Amino acid sequence: MIGIGAGDPRQVTVQAIEAMRRADVFFVIGKGERKQELLDVRTAILAAHVDHDYRVVTIEDPPRDRAIAATGADAAYRDAVTDWHDRRADLLAAEFAAVDGVGAILVWGDPALYDSILRLVDRVLARGVVSFDHEVIPGITSAQALAARHRIVLHDIGEPLHITTGRRLREEGVRAGESTLVMLDGECSFTTVPGDDLHIWWAAYLGLPDEELIEGPLRAVEGRIMRRRNELRESKGWIMDIYLLRGTEPPATR
Amino acid sequence: MIGIGAGDPRQVTVQAIEAMRRADVFFVIGKGERKQELLDVRTAILAAHVDHDYRVVTIEDPPRDRAIAATGADAAYRDAVTDWHDRRADLLAAEFAAVDGVGAILVWGDPALYDSILRLVDRVLARGVVSFDHEVIPGITSAQALAARHRIVLHDIGEPLHITTGRRLREEGVRAGESTLVMLDGECSFTTVPGDDLHIWWAAYLGLPDEELIEGPLRAVEGRIMRRRNELRESKGWIMDIYLLRGTEPPATR
Ligand SMILES: C[S@@+](CC[C@H](N)C(=O)[O-])C[C@H]1O[C@@H](n2cnc3c(N)ncnc32)[C@H](O)[C@@H]1O
Ligand SMILES: C[S@@+](CC[C@H](N)C(=O)[O-])C[C@H]1O[C@@H](n2cnc3c(N)ncnc32)[C@H](O)[C@@H]1O
Repeated sequence: MIGIGAGDPRQVTVQAIEAMRRADVFFVIGKGERKQELLDVRTAILAAHVDHDYRVVTIEDPPRDRAIAATGADAAYRDAVTDWHDRRADLLAAEFAAVDGVGAILVWGDPALYDSILRLVDRVLARGVVSFDHEVIPGITSAQALAARHRIVLHDIGEPLHITTGRRLREEGVRAGESTLVMLDGECSFTTVPGDDLHIWWAAYLGLPDEELIEGPLRAVEGRIMRRRNELRESKGWIMDIYLLRGTEPPATR
Repeated sequence: MIGIGAGDPRQVTVQAIEAMRRADVFFVIGKGERKQELLDVRTAILAAHVDHDYRVVTIEDPPRDRAIAATGADAAYRDAVTDWHDRRADLLAAEFAAVDGVGAILVWGDPALYDSILRLVDRVLARGVVSFDHEVIPGITSAQALAARHRIVLHDIGEPLHITTGRRLREEGVRAGESTLVMLDGECSFTTVPGDDLHIWWAAYLGLPDEELIEGPLRAVEGRIMRRRNELRESKGWIMDIYLLRGTEPPATR
């Protein structure tokens, strides 16, 4: 499992390049990447650093059970999800078993942050039908790309950094004395967070040609971010964005 | 400001290598690195990837005021700290002003996580005596190295990740429903955290020849980690460690 960074192909590490050069097979898992630019990053990385012969094996996700389409938390829903994950693991196990050599899976950003591949591989191993050794290679995350492009530290001196999702931000807000980094937010959840002293550092398409940054007092810039986000999503057909929220009152008064 | 990863020289990115190759001067800031192995990582990275002529400029920290030695939070203490930071910024400004070309500063891990260089550079710019453009290049953090070596995701599905210090862990503990990653802990603060369902993933000297990993139920392995940490610190003279704590009860019952 090789982290490849979150947009800029130059963010790949030497360790990731060495691992890609050892791979006999690259597995591409899921429903197929529909976003050409995200595919281009992978292509650019492989083209720049790998020139041996390799195979590409695409593993399509099994169809999801109808029960999963409905969001729910009841037992039937959980069984359907578990069953779907098991079928996914069985498909992978069969493909892994067919490989004699080294397989690689390229992962957006870092496999340790909001990505399901490590859990999927653990599930494959737990099924017990195929055995293999595996290694995880970290990659630059979108959180780090955000900080680098805004040239900021992700937290105040000695204070914590909280990394969360849009859904959890809506439920839990921003805690005093810590910085909150939000990923996976399709709904501009920052608009739901109360507080007049919050600052936001926002970015979309980090490391990609259409990268955009906006930064400022949350209440002053949130409207601009929402409008820009809508425009971008409409013109490109998709968006990927991330942001950091932090109070600006000096720590002593918090 | 170039992040170089947190131990393994192969964790340097292509972007970092390109930036190092553009540098006319490397600034080494602080009291000088006393840990030979950490110096060796920088040397290995430069030796492997850079072969143009460059200068190294060492900038010693100004002596700290006596008032700073005493830990305190009163006004006199804060003034002394501010004054010390200003003198540090003035020293840097003078060295930066003497450079005609590109200067680089290698930063352990990622400059966005528990590192003071970005704030120092902002302070240099705020003094107004020298002006320059600057760029931040992210690096793999020790948190990511920890996750990769234990082959884990840093959080449960859809749940938050809290990154904090040993001191804050002692004050605040581990919150239900989130994973807590602890850095800068000189005191095995995990022993102070209540709870029988916590799991710990611990590592020392990640990416270095003496790397050590221990993982298990916190109450079952905390004694072993403490003993091993003491042994290692005594035999090597220094230690750098990091860990993740997370409850193991299924989310539904938390
Ligand atoms: C499924 S998560 C994967 C995160 C990835 N493993 C990482 O380390 O960054 C996808 C979320 O990451 C963030 N993200 C990833 N790449 C991004 C980029 N290039 N620009 C902005 N946000 C990005 C967005 O918040 C998006 O919703
Ligand atoms: C001043 S902070 C710097 C963090 C760095 N900027 C990063 O991105 O990892 C130093 C702390 O990072 C952690 N750390 C850094 N390198 C490490 C390593 N190789 N092994 C274990 N812990 C490490 C330790 O918790 C240490 O106390």
